[in-house]
Amino acid sequence: MRKQRKMGHITIVGPSKSVVKSRLNLMLQKDATTEKQAATSRVAIIMGSDSDLPVMKDAAEILTSFGIPFELTIVSAHRTPERMYSFAMSAKDRGIQVIIAGAGGAAHLPGMVASLTALPVIGVPVKTSSLSGMDSLLSIVQMPKGIPVATVAIGNAANAGLLAARMLASTDSDLWDKVTKYQKELEDTVLLKAERLEGEGWERYLNA
Amino acid sequence: MRKQRKMGHITIVGPSKSVVKSRLNLMLQKDATTEKQAATSRVAIIMGSDSDLPVMKDAAEILTSFGIPFELTIVSAHRTPERMYSFAMSAKDRGIQVIIAGAGGAAHLPGMVASLTALPVIGVPVKTSSLSGMDSLLSIVQMPKGIPVATVAIGNAANAGLLAARMLASTDSDLWDKVTKYQKELEDTVLLKAERLEGEGWERYLNA
Amino acid sequence: MRKQRKMGHITIVGPSKSVVKSRLNLMLQKDATTEKQAATSRVAIIMGSDSDLPVMKDAAEILTSFGIPFELTIVSAHRTPERMYSFAMSAKDRGIQVIIAGAGGAAHLPGMVASLTALPVIGVPVKTSSLSGMDSLLSIVQMPKGIPVATVAIGNAANAGLLAARMLASTDSDLWDKVTKYQKELEDTVLLKAERLEGEGWERYLNA
Amino acid sequence: MRKQRKMGHITIVGPSKSVVKSRLNLMLQKDATTEKQAATSRVAIIMGSDSDLPVMKDAAEILTSFGIPFELTIVSAHRTPERMYSFAMSAKDRGIQVIIAGAGGAAHLPGMVASLTALPVIGVPVKTSSLSGMDSLLSIVQMPKGIPVATVAIGNAANAGLLAARMLASTDSDLWDKVTKYQKELEDTVLLKAERLEGEGWERYLNA
Amino acid sequence: MRKQRKMGHITIVGPSKSVVKSRLNLMLQKDATTEKQAATSRVAIIMGSDSDLPVMKDAAEILTSFGIPFELTIVSAHRTPERMYSFAMSAKDRGIQVIIAGAGGAAHLPGMVASLTALPVIGVPVKTSSLSGMDSLLSIVQMPKGIPVATVAIGNAANAGLLAARMLASTDSDLWDKVTKYQKELEDTVLLKAERLEGEGWERYLNA
Amino acid sequence: MRKQRKMGHITIVGPSKSVVKSRLNLMLQKDATTEKQAATSRVAIIMGSDSDLPVMKDAAEILTSFGIPFELTIVSAHRTPERMYSFAMSAKDRGIQVIIAGAGGAAHLPGMVASLTALPVIGVPVKTSSLSGMDSLLSIVQMPKGIPVATVAIGNAANAGLLAARMLASTDSDLWDKVTKYQKELEDTVLLKAERLEGEGWERYLNA
Amino acid sequence: MRKQRKMGHITIVGPSKSVVKSRLNLMLQKDATTEKQAATSRVAIIMGSDSDLPVMKDAAEILTSFGIPFELTIVSAHRTPERMYSFAMSAKDRGIQVIIAGAGGAAHLPGMVASLTALPVIGVPVKTSSLSGMDSLLSIVQMPKGIPVATVAIGNAANAGLLAARMLASTDSDLWDKVTKYQKELEDTVLLKAERLEGEGWERYLNA
Amino acid sequence: MRKQRKMGHITIVGPSKSVVKSRLNLMLQKDATTEKQAATSRVAIIMGSDSDLPVMKDAAEILTSFGIPFELTIVSAHRTPERMYSFAMSAKDRGIQVIIAGAGGAAHLPGMVASLTALPVIGVPVKTSSLSGMDSLLSIVQMPKGIPVATVAIGNAANAGLLAARMLASTDSDLWDKVTKYQKELEDTVLLKAERLEGEGWERYLNA
Repeated sequence: MRKQRKMGHITIVGPSKSVVKSRLNLMLQKDATTEKQAATSRVAIIMGSDSDLPVMKDAAEILTSFGIPFELTIVSAHRTPERMYSFAMSAKDRGIQVIIAGAGGAAHLPGMVASLTALPVIGVPVKTSSLSGMDSLLSIVQMPKGIPVATVAIGNAANAGLLAARMLASTDSDLWDKVTKYQKELEDTVLLKAERLEGEGWERYLNA
Repeated sequence: MRKQRKMGHITIVGPSKSVVKSRLNLMLQKDATTEKQAATSRVAIIMGSDSDLPVMKDAAEILTSFGIPFELTIVSAHRTPERMYSFAMSAKDRGIQVIIAGAGGAAHLPGMVASLTALPVIGVPVKTSSLSGMDSLLSIVQMPKGIPVATVAIGNAANAGLLAARMLASTDSDLWDKVTKYQKELEDTVLLKAERLEGEGWERYLNA
Repeated sequence: MRKQRKMGHITIVGPSKSVVKSRLNLMLQKDATTEKQAATSRVAIIMGSDSDLPVMKDAAEILTSFGIPFELTIVSAHRTPERMYSFAMSAKDRGIQVIIAGAGGAAHLPGMVASLTALPVIGVPVKTSSLSGMDSLLSIVQMPKGIPVATVAIGNAANAGLLAARMLASTDSDLWDKVTKYQKELEDTVLLKAERLEGEGWERYLNA
Repeated sequence: MRKQRKMGHITIVGPSKSVVKSRLNLMLQKDATTEKQAATSRVAIIMGSDSDLPVMKDAAEILTSFGIPFELTIVSAHRTPERMYSFAMSAKDRGIQVIIAGAGGAAHLPGMVASLTALPVIGVPVKTSSLSGMDSLLSIVQMPKGIPVATVAIGNAANAGLLAARMLASTDSDLWDKVTKYQKELEDTVLLKAERLEGEGWERYLNA
Repeated sequence: MRKQRKMGHITIVGPSKSVVKSRLNLMLQKDATTEKQAATSRVAIIMGSDSDLPVMKDAAEILTSFGIPFELTIVSAHRTPERMYSFAMSAKDRGIQVIIAGAGGAAHLPGMVASLTALPVIGVPVKTSSLSGMDSLLSIVQMPKGIPVATVAIGNAANAGLLAARMLASTDSDLWDKVTKYQKELEDTVLLKAERLEGEGWERYLNA
Repeated sequence: MRKQRKMGHITIVGPSKSVVKSRLNLMLQKDATTEKQAATSRVAIIMGSDSDLPVMKDAAEILTSFGIPFELTIVSAHRTPERMYSFAMSAKDRGIQVIIAGAGGAAHLPGMVASLTALPVIGVPVKTSSLSGMDSLLSIVQMPKGIPVATVAIGNAANAGLLAARMLASTDSDLWDKVTKYQKELEDTVLLKAERLEGEGWERYLNA
Repeated sequence: MRKQRKMGHITIVGPSKSVVKSRLNLMLQKDATTEKQAATSRVAIIMGSDSDLPVMKDAAEILTSFGIPFELTIVSAHRTPERMYSFAMSAKDRGIQVIIAGAGGAAHLPGMVASLTALPVIGVPVKTSSLSGMDSLLSIVQMPKGIPVATVAIGNAANAGLLAARMLASTDSDLWDKVTKYQKELEDTVLLKAERLEGEGWERYLNA
Repeated sequence: MRKQRKMGHITIVGPSKSVVKSRLNLMLQKDATTEKQAATSRVAIIMGSDSDLPVMKDAAEILTSFGIPFELTIVSAHRTPERMYSFAMSAKDRGIQVIIAGAGGAAHLPGMVASLTALPVIGVPVKTSSLSGMDSLLSIVQMPKGIPVATVAIGNAANAGLLAARMLASTDSDLWDKVTKYQKELEDTVLLKAERLEGEGWERYLNA
């Protein structure tokens, strides 16, 4: 823990009471109010914009299906750099073990968070309208030596959730069983489809 | 553990005694002979070819510096598919917690290993002569839903080692201290260089 | 044939009777139950997911039009790696002469099947939503020395079927006649269209 | 065979006797003089320029190692279009079963040959100085429906040779044994290297 | 003219009278039946498939607007290689001065035609569904030394028509006046729009 | 100022009175008629075509919101090269401090304007239908040494407006306050969304 | 000719007498001093920088070999925009029939020249150190409707020279004979190499 | 200025006195010790690593040639995120008017600095070994709405310096004269080279 740095005498301002409160909560994330939630969350899912939510929710669904407690919120590297700072630097102390960060375009969120904490960070490149997410992918995966980001496929937040589960499962035998069972079910699903396809023939299968 | 599948009555052949022995060892990896080594290795570093070693050794150096026991060997998805199968399916039982897999071109090793185990797999795209590793990157990162690979930058095996360390560190406070210290040293190195550059001016700095 | 490796004492489990049966059938593909079908199939068309079927059916249609017996099913490299194993290793013995494998994204199916058998394998890169199949193409075509995959254009399963027909036709004069006739008909179709276009002029042709 | 088209009353001219003779030989390839060679060649290796020979020779070496008789020559789609026509249209009658064609840049040779014969054509994209062979790859692999080219990796003529061998081996049990033995040896080579690497450790292995 | 090569004693077959006639016409393009049209056509617009017509018609419209006589038809490099041959080799004698050739994917038509005639050939890369015409562009523009193709932008057949007009205009002062007038009108159109935009302001302009 | 070059004795012609007037106005931009507008405009927004207006209007909206006077019009490098010339060479004298130029495809407008004035030029790559704006981006950003263009993201004219505001704000404290307030509001917007998302949970947030 | 625009009362300044003279000459290109040279030049080869000369000289060599008179100089779109204007607008009157323009990076020279004259312009994308000429290619070829540039392969100035020759040859029977002879010699060169390769075998050929 | 946030009671630690001092200096940048330097610097040049210095020094040389005072140092987004924060947030108060930031790979420095200050930020994509700087370019230029980065060509730090000079020159007539003079000299250099090339002919010019 970085004991030597303390934030003190901070005056918080904002356009409305709720923003001030929101900021205060964020700054105090180690403290009482968020303690309960933080105590249980093992994974944090963050995204640069609420427009990434339809993609990033897939990570939430995977974690929910495995019973892994998580928090999910918006943290923008470019629009809320201070929030990103306090989020990343307090994550470990709040009990977070893995961070999933999704962003698009010049996607700096995963890499910056990885530079502000030593927790493993999983990056999800969000597809963009002009370059189909190739910009997001390169902005996330091509990190310099010293600051790794575990990058998954463009738009594949489900795999980010699974990767977080795999990380946690290697020292959690209950979770290990769930993850292997999930993988087994993937297999079964394919086997059942294959069986049906072989039985029906492709014409009928396609028209079903 | 997948108890229900057993390999039995296997006849092992090979061009020389050493290959037969090598195969036997591999097949018996859960057993006595390799037990000692497997007991201590928490990370496995594998690569598709020994031509990848000059790249992949960076992961070994990082793990060594953190005191994380690891095994390192060659497992080719395309030339030794059976070895890959037995390697991946026995890894968890041998005590491995994270697998680092490097490969180039149509790089299938990381993804195939990830499909054969539920351990977290880190993929290192090795640079290729014709397409500079873009083929390796896409072959590793663009995995379908269900089978994640934690991909790092092209040729950046050091970051693969660091990512493995981060994964292990979230439940290992000694390792956590080492990883944060590493990150602090990165910072100090830059600060010292910056200080020297500001002091000397860029002309003298460049000519030093 | 690889006589020295035998699979024995296998216990098959599954979520339902049909999956167990499906698995048993697969494992026993050399045996009686599938003997009839296998005896006649010269080509196998496999795909990583049933979502690839609308693309891959074009190969089936071509083979059907040439009267080449084939089997068609789902084999996922990532979700059913063991099924892929047994499929590929038994294909030759079941009478298969050419394998057509389609997959998208980090498409490992064609390459892995090619590494598990010495039969010629034709790879069909399936178009992906984010990278338009460029990831599929590179994952399939950029195979390392020793394990070739005959790659066709993105999404062009019809050409995969034709390529299989050409391979078989070089030692099958009936099939040769059909393939050259097909090529002749392609030519005739263009000639007829050209004739009509020249006769009508492009305005009327376009509005027809 | 396309009986209905005959070439007649051709006057052959050239800058020297040898060129005239060369042309004559080419035009008469079905006839006596080249009959002997043609009788034995099962594979033809052609390339657009002798600058492609250092790449394409790898296909020749593979075929030689398997004892597959082949012919090897230069046929340029762009500089010798007529030679390409007569080459492609006479190949089947000369006994050729598979054609391997390598070219770089706007590489039209494989596709044009495939449009002039019904034999299976394997395309080798040769690396280019400006675009690293991406232009060659797309020019070869992206063929329209009806005319397939079996494309291998950029610069990988060895795999083109292997693919030809696989095609021939499916109806030639001697060749099948050679091809599977080759694949087995690939495996053994990796296993031996893996054994040595594990025995020596990577530092000694790299410095050896 | 290449006097030394003559085609003789050709038997033409086809699936229907019209195809035979169409072929005969094509082969006899120097002769009476098409003499009238050929006599007046200075530009030939060809395309690999009638699916390219909605793109290629823009070239026809430009030529029509300049009063340049042209012929327009389908010539497929891959499906009608012989037609392409006779088309290209007879073009000069039929009075054609410029050839415009459009094709998509592994687009070989412009390059092959350029290798079969010394007329200037303008290539139009037609947009493709998977790679957006990048494959078409590289297949057309990256020609080797000796055989140039004048390539225009993806899908920009209008510019191909204009380029043909510019080529012809440099020795045709009437046409020169038309081409410079066209360019002047382009300028005027922009000036008028600019005037209106400046006058109305962008909000009203957009809503108009 | 480039005193030594004067334009004199110009005869202006055009297809209509309005074009002539429009041209005259443009040529006389330093003079009385446009003096009023020019006097107040600090930024010029130009685009190659009115089809770029739906993209480029975002720059206008940003400047309007900051109260920065600007002019907005169409200047095509390719269709109105002379207008571009006079526009760029008179801009400084008309009081313009920053030029924003948007164009698509082979986008030459920003670079050419930057070569004709010493004012800072901001380039907006407009998305294209075939290459998604990658052609626009490279045509704008890859300028040679000596002639810089400040390039923003594909289609991101809002950022071009903001960049112009930042440039002006560094010596304009009122504007500085507006720009920092804008940035603060961006932050507040995200904080409010984050607060709502955390409060409602992602399911309700998505369905709202 | 555009009579209505005249440049008058120009004061020419420069760092040295030679530059002033050079500028004067350029501005007066229609006049006496350059009349002699201009009278004979049918092709102009221009390039953005003398660093492009090692590439662009190939065009000069081709034109020289065909006896086509040409001029060759440096015209930078970005560094000498006024020179580019006067060059392009005077080219037709000086007798130029085709312009060859080479440039690298954000290569605007070919497109801008094409917008300033109605002569056919051939663009040569010069290879760049970072993006291998892909930026040059897209900046040259992706011209908007109305202003075509005849683009050749990256770095292939020889083909630009050949394309110019083809354009001129269609109305110049002497040149036509030279161009067809050139193409014939290309063919002969390949035929002779093929003959030697077939005669010697590839091992001896490669070692020769 | 953001008065409401104060950093207080900070304990600074470091591996050596110099690092502690360096950090203290940085944190106190508004204060006495660096006041002198800060007072004179109008531009700050920062880079992610001293390995970028051979590229970034070109910006320093340009600024020096224009007599624009600047500071130059290393600020790594990933390795010194806190230094980046204090650097960016104090820049305006230290008198900086423009920031030039260079970085390679997943280059986050320019974008993050732009999110932490309202000053104009110029981004220099540094060429990378695997992807030639395409990753750097996309990571810098593809910024989301709200946070612009003025991006220049890959590796073109000289243009970053020039762009900074242009920004400052629009309100500084002395600097304006220098910048226009620079542009004039670029022109003269080309004109002199063109004159020599035309005088000598290209063969002698190349051999000189």
